[in-house]
Amino acid sequence: MTTPSRRDLANAIRFLAIDAVEAAKSGHPGMPMGMADIAEVLWNDFLSHNPNNPKWFNRDRFVLSNGHGSMLVYALLHLSGYDLPMEQLRRFRQLHSKTAGHPEYGHTPGIETTTGPLGQGLANAVGMALAERLLAQRFNRPEFDVVDHHTWVFLGDGCLMEGVSHEAASLAGTWGLGKLIAFWDDNRISIDGDTSGWFTDDTPARFEAYGWQVIRKVDGHDPQEIIQAIKTAQAETGKPTLICCRTTIGFGSPGKAGKESSHGAPLGKDEVAATREALGWPHAPFEIPAAIADGWRAGNAGLVREEQWNRLFDAYAKAYPELAAELVRRSHGELPEGFADAARAYAARLQLEGPVVASRKASQMALDAFGPLLPELVGGSADLAHSNLTLWKGSKSVTTNDANANYVHFGVREFGMSAICNGIALHGGFIPYDATFLVFSDYSRNALRMSALIPTRTIHVFTHDSIGLGEDGPTHQPVEHLASLRYIPNNDVWRPCDAVESAVCWQAAIERTDGPSCLVFSRQNLAHQPRTAQQVADIARGGYVLSDPGEGTFDLILVATGSEVELAMEAMRRLAGEGVRARVVSMPCAEVFARQPLEWREGVLPSWCRKRVAVEAGVTGYWRQFVGLDGAVVGIDQFGASAPAEQLYKHFGITVEAVVDAAKALR
Amino acid sequence: MTTPSRRDLANAIRFLAIDAVEAAKSGHPGMPMGMADIAEVLWNDFLSHNPNNPKWFNRDRFVLSNGHGSMLVYALLHLSGYDLPMEQLRRFRQLHSKTAGHPEYGHTPGIETTTGPLGQGLANAVGMALAERLLAQRFNRPEFDVVDHHTWVFLGDGCLMEGVSHEAASLAGTWGLGKLIAFWDDNRISIDGDTSGWFTDDTPARFEAYGWQVIRKVDGHDPQEIIQAIKTAQAETGKPTLICCRTTIGFGSPGKAGKESSHGAPLGKDEVAATREALGWPHAPFEIPAAIADGWRAGNAGLVREEQWNRLFDAYAKAYPELAAELVRRSHGELPEGFADAARAYAARLQLEGPVVASRKASQMALDAFGPLLPELVGGSADLAHSNLTLWKGSKSVTTNDANANYVHFGVREFGMSAICNGIALHGGFIPYDATFLVFSDYSRNALRMSALIPTRTIHVFTHDSIGLGEDGPTHQPVEHLASLRYIPNNDVWRPCDAVESAVCWQAAIERTDGPSCLVFSRQNLAHQPRTAQQVADIARGGYVLSDPGEGTFDLILVATGSEVELAMEAMRRLAGEGVRARVVSMPCAEVFARQPLEWREGVLPSWCRKRVAVEAGVTGYWRQFVGLDGAVVGIDQFGASAPAEQLYKHFGITVEAVVDAAKALR
Repeated sequence: MTTPSRRDLANAIRFLAIDAVEAAKSGHPGMPMGMADIAEVLWNDFLSHNPNNPKWFNRDRFVLSNGHGSMLVYALLHLSGYDLPMEQLRRFRQLHSKTAGHPEYGHTPGIETTTGPLGQGLANAVGMALAERLLAQRFNRPEFDVVDHHTWVFLGDGCLMEGVSHEAASLAGTWGLGKLIAFWDDNRISIDGDTSGWFTDDTPARFEAYGWQVIRKVDGHDPQEIIQAIKTAQAETGKPTLICCRTTIGFGSPGKAGKESSHGAPLGKDEVAATREALGWPHAPFEIPAAIADGWRAGNAGLVREEQWNRLFDAYAKAYPELAAELVRRSHGELPEGFADAARAYAARLQLEGPVVASRKASQMALDAFGPLLPELVGGSADLAHSNLTLWKGSKSVTTNDANANYVHFGVREFGMSAICNGIALHGGFIPYDATFLVFSDYSRNALRMSALIPTRTIHVFTHDSIGLGEDGPTHQPVEHLASLRYIPNNDVWRPCDAVESAVCWQAAIERTDGPSCLVFSRQNLAHQPRTAQQVADIARGGYVLSDPGEGTFDLILVATGSEVELAMEAMRRLAGEGVRARVVSMPCAEVFARQPLEWREGVLPSWCRKRVAVEAGVTGYWRQFVGLDGAVVGIDQFGASAPAEQLYKHFGITVEAVVDAAKALR
Repeated sequence: MTTPSRRDLANAIRFLAIDAVEAAKSGHPGMPMGMADIAEVLWNDFLSHNPNNPKWFNRDRFVLSNGHGSMLVYALLHLSGYDLPMEQLRRFRQLHSKTAGHPEYGHTPGIETTTGPLGQGLANAVGMALAERLLAQRFNRPEFDVVDHHTWVFLGDGCLMEGVSHEAASLAGTWGLGKLIAFWDDNRISIDGDTSGWFTDDTPARFEAYGWQVIRKVDGHDPQEIIQAIKTAQAETGKPTLICCRTTIGFGSPGKAGKESSHGAPLGKDEVAATREALGWPHAPFEIPAAIADGWRAGNAGLVREEQWNRLFDAYAKAYPELAAELVRRSHGELPEGFADAARAYAARLQLEGPVVASRKASQMALDAFGPLLPELVGGSADLAHSNLTLWKGSKSVTTNDANANYVHFGVREFGMSAICNGIALHGGFIPYDATFLVFSDYSRNALRMSALIPTRTIHVFTHDSIGLGEDGPTHQPVEHLASLRYIPNNDVWRPCDAVESAVCWQAAIERTDGPSCLVFSRQNLAHQPRTAQQVADIARGGYVLSDPGEGTFDLILVATGSEVELAMEAMRRLAGEGVRARVVSMPCAEVFARQPLEWREGVLPSWCRKRVAVEAGVTGYWRQFVGLDGAVVGIDQFGASAPAEQLYKHFGITVEAVVDAAKALR
């Protein structure tokens, strides 16, 4: 057999996709068929990666933002020599296979992020490109560009219609991310059909308005045009590039090419046969002729690339041993030695000092305490820096070329912000945090879910956590948000009651490696709570006994979080005055509490005591899992109102009196 | 006193805003001060409204998308003669005042929508402009333009940074909404300061890319330039217009104009005095000199306008009595006579026929049954028409000029879609519905919250409601979404178990006038459940006894929703075989159930029976409020996986066996 043509190489992708979807009886063949030629050029001629080591730190990042075309990337991984054997492709979309319906990070080697929810892959890629830029700024030295890679992203019309694409692309333009290169699969078809009825943007003009380089009208099926476009993209180092690739969805299918029918369903037996005929691919399903397989492997210069980089890095390590060690530490996501001790010492000191501050202020104090120890901390706020209190003494804008640039002004872009932070976390070398008002967690909600699903070490700061924010009124007052965030699997939601718990929750979020944390802070001042050293240590368990009656046992339990802990404490005192002995449990993080051994949980909330009152300025239903049908919940199940905070607490009945009354009414 | 200048008139707005914020000790003076001149021109010279009748159907709609500048619109309403006395302005942001921190629909006369969450006001306005267009298409006749008004929207940099502005503006451009005119408050300041660090878009070019007419570089403090721009905007009838107004935030404040310090806090006593001096406004707080007050009232041609329109409408009613009656009916939000009976008859028929279909299919059947009766039904899907099954036999695209155009291809824009539907509902004349996969309710979440808060009669259709969607995997499988949506106050969430319940939930959503409904449907087929006529009627109560043991009482209760009702029914049968008598409760809508009299709720879930098992393919914690600490919940508290649906149900243990085992384990 002669050397395979580029089209032959691309057809290998096409038929792996076609046949896997056919075998699974579901999936999306149209996109892989349409983008195969682009992918073939990019992966064989440009992508700097090493299939033998998917975790090589300086690899190019490749993101499939149109994640439904997952078979494209599975085919690429398989053909390029990643540990994804054909057997896995045959088991596309089956239980326990490595080839899930949408690409999943951590599930399949070589997948850089989990995609499917449209537009977020682009935002993840913006975060990766920002991380690369910032690491290069920090660690590279003359002749030692040890951090130096591109971030490539494939995206479709759906990604471009989504609002998050606006937020992410705008920031990428502002930041001038020259190593971010996006390929738009301009096939003019979305699930509902020809996009002319609902997608009439002049997308190239739109991206130029964001400050991107735009390469128009590239034939996405012509390798030479694609090569030229990529070279032009790489030559522009001051702007991200959008390459507009005119493609045909379902390319090669006589009956379905250019039609939405190729998008999200198997082609069908007859059409598969016709496509084999049309593209000249006589091979059986999942059979790749040796010459074509070799054509792909031959294009893989990965081992060489990583070896070259290893040599560069060794020399760098000799010249700059401390920098090198630090980069290794950060690339592994390890915290600096001594961080945990320092954090514990800080909490202990706060316990002694007992500052009475808003927990958002306590959060800023924690940033000031931990920030100097953690050069990997990077983050910011969606235009609420002075409300969220996310700026700390060491903050330096990422729009500067300061080596320690670490602060991001995200603008009013909550969804883009969180999705970008997920990308930063995925890239590695940083622990990102973002911030907005708790109520606007709604805007970024699917990115929060993706933090938990991927999962990433992303820290989401939410301030103004209840009706306690006061006059801004119900549009700005979260009610259902605490419960809703807690129900996202693998999402730790902390709502500390004072400065000490605030410090501990920051420590927990920083130390957590297997998922995100939401840190929820008050606008208003919170009382300081007395604790023994043991109690300070117990905060990290998510729920603990803050106060017990002096001697003997107790009659009932009050459970509270955040600003309502001081209500519970005062209620406990009043009840004591009436001879009722109440235990007070502070529950800053119900998820962490749920992960404690049964013994701990039983120790805090013993089964024998069914007299329980929960207090939280949020929906009450959530707390029934703690207080049952016999307990009571003091909370709010309606929208708030615009008025000073103290009046609102009274108006909505979240008061010491209400807690006392609820406790006394228990039978 | 001489005739007041336009600047004097505008200064009345400025000082009402300044002094109200000062009195409230919180609020946002900068925007009203910056946009006062634009607002003065628009409201005095162009806005077609009648302060004596804020509900006049053909009024222009005015939307403040940058809702934090609420004092601007309160000042406008007061000065124009709406029922908003000075006393209310003095009580800005106080409990029970009509001047909440952000504008609230239904709370203050003349407020067209609730704003504050940025960007959504623009999307609401797009919905209003679409509603106007479609009503005109349907009802206008030669010489009788009975529906003919503009929709005006003020927006700020924050709105433009938000992704939802992209989605809404793109659709407005595609639809060519010529009567939509937006004013961009281009003051280059957001909360964090000078926007050059985070908002560098070429916004005029961006909007041209959407197909808008863009009027650049208008001096927002020069009435003549503003007048000219508005005339140019009105002259373009085929495209929406963005008027780019260069303004100074905090205009007139010597120390804070052009600075973020004027944005979100009182100016302070000294700065207020300096601003009085600088703008030549010697009047005391909340004092408007008679000449200036008259200058505003004189500009109000509202009564005349509505009288002219009333005459036009009377003539129209003579020429087209049926059309006129229909327009009146629809403008009042009344359903056609006989709808309720027809809907009940349809459900009764389904109960007899017993179709076994996916509930998404049952939803489409309901649309086919109810659609012909409801010309006010308008809606569509975010590019998932053939998955959500939102197209029905009478669907006609709104991009046509068909008099009955009623179907919207929203593209992949969930957030814009729902915010636009809220705007359609607010405009009146339509009952809007939108649709996407349940998991992507995340993308539109704050618009869903706004539906409930405003509130609007918006119907949100969500299909693919659980791991039951199968192969698309965890990114597409909702787990926490049912519970999270239910926790939004005033949001009715229906999850029907078969075609009959699906029909009833559509009826309930259509008949509900005081808030939104989420209708949650399965991808997979659902069994038909036997019911008596009384049970069919009981569905509308949200929760009811679907099955009781033949005689005597029962030992335990199984509660389920949607696709899990058939699991509960089968578990009941197996338990019966073992001598355990189980009641089965179907709970399609927990919110409606909660609104039933105690007697009903107690009848369905009697307190004496604590042996309860809830079954739902979602997070378990939510159900503790029904089953308590002694009951059990069969559900899923982790992310799903990619595999065929039946395998997933088994894998995650949501099975008949699991229900039976949980029931038998109860003590």
